[in-house]
Amino acid sequence: MRITIAAVGELLHTATLLHDDVIDGGEFRRGRPTARLQYGNGMAVLTGDFCLARAMQAIAYSGRLPAVQTLSDAVTRMAEGEVAQLEIAGDAAPDKARYYLVIERKTAALIAWCASVGGLPAPERSVALHRYGLEIGYAFQIADDVLDYAGDPHDTGKTRGQDLRDGKLTLPLILACERDPGLQRAVHQLLAHGPPVDGEAAEAIVARVAASPGVELAARAAETHAETAVAQLAELPPSSARDALVELARSVSRRVS
Amino acid sequence: MRITIAAVGELLHTATLLHDDVIDGGEFRRGRPTARLQYGNGMAVLTGDFCLARAMQAIAYSGRLPAVQTLSDAVTRMAEGEVAQLEIAGDAAPDKARYYLVIERKTAALIAWCASVGGLPAPERSVALHRYGLEIGYAFQIADDVLDYAGDPHDTGKTRGQDLRDGKLTLPLILACERDPGLQRAVHQLLAHGPPVDGEAAEAIVARVAASPGVELAARAAETHAETAVAQLAELPPSSARDALVELARSVSRRVS
Repeated sequence: MRITIAAVGELLHTATLLHDDVIDGGEFRRGRPTARLQYGNGMAVLTGDFCLARAMQAIAYSGRLPAVQTLSDAVTRMAEGEVAQLEIAGDAAPDKARYYLVIERKTAALIAWCASVGGLPAPERSVALHRYGLEIGYAFQIADDVLDYAGDPHDTGKTRGQDLRDGKLTLPLILACERDPGLQRAVHQLLAHGPPVDGEAAEAIVARVAASPGVELAARAAETHAETAVAQLAELPPSSARDALVELARSVSRRVS
Repeated sequence: MRITIAAVGELLHTATLLHDDVIDGGEFRRGRPTARLQYGNGMAVLTGDFCLARAMQAIAYSGRLPAVQTLSDAVTRMAEGEVAQLEIAGDAAPDKARYYLVIERKTAALIAWCASVGGLPAPERSVALHRYGLEIGYAFQIADDVLDYAGDPHDTGKTRGQDLRDGKLTLPLILACERDPGLQRAVHQLLAHGPPVDGEAAEAIVARVAASPGVELAARAAETHAETAVAQLAELPPSSARDALVELARSVSRRVS
């Protein structure tokens, strides 16, 4: 069975999106109705399970036990990250350490696995590539969270400020609150009765975060993670593949959709 | 990492139950509120994902690649079986071949994996044990489907006839319909507008199936599968382990809850 790492990554990413939309009750993704809306929650859960199983199967038949072991580690961490995110949803105390813990598990672990698995036969390269993947995972997720406040809904296909409405306190808001205790109190009040929240009060906070330095600071944090990712590649000999990885890292923090 | 096959089977079974209850909107299991009712759909989906990943991880770290490969096959088949069951739910044409296809995938594949994995180093034993597992899987699922019509709700903790209400046409009903075209028409009419269905018409069909020869014939089919399972064990040398497998097979078809 020939299957590329990219395809396995895609299967796992699809599994996550399918389950996420069931969990959040998501209705649109990139402007199109979600699978759960079109085919029902049941079919979305099961198709996600199938994608997960199929990814594990593909790697199991690659015949490389360390690849299977590290993948099962990554998938376990992903599930833990999602549980952690759900557990703290609506907890109105913005906390950067906890934010990183969640995005490391729910996003960066999978990208790190994809980046490192090709290098497993050469341990020192694999470590650098794993770190590269983690850093672009952070950059990717933070850029995503910035877009939630500052993106053009026409490009992203999502309602602005959806994360806050779902009770998810992301980096732009956390950084804005660090500089504005009044904002932090407003968030606390908004989420006093738990997510989901909506209405004018939510709208006002979204506008306040969007106009705050939090957005720019978070965007810069994404760029820093992308540059840290690039720095890991110094371990690799120069090649067109390495150039592509550099380009990938930088494009991740510059995404607009 | 030391983990028994039974624990891996338990993790995968738990994952299936957690996701099944989300898919069916199940409220009670063995008389107690389901996880989705207590903790929400999101937590139930994610905890199921975690159990699935943790099971794969445990086997991956056992260091036996064939065990990982066959487990990922079984999990893929389980997801396919659940999708197939959901796709045909409410299809009012009872069909024995399709019923077996679904239960092979959703129930028997996992039990067959658990039964055979210990025998993998000895291929001829592994084949017999796999067949043993499939047959007790059939026996287990058919016995479960019989209980849905003929069990004591006090023992099973479930509403009688829930399968029919969810649009699942199981062996007792299929065998009853084979002998009663009027019943088949009534089922067709009941499910004309798709599941879930409820009310007096559903109640009447459940009572008709419960009083039909379908229940007894299905119970006998479960026993036959259990005996076919026992017959596979002739390949194994006599031992107390083999005696326990015989006892297990027979107890499966005699279950009352």
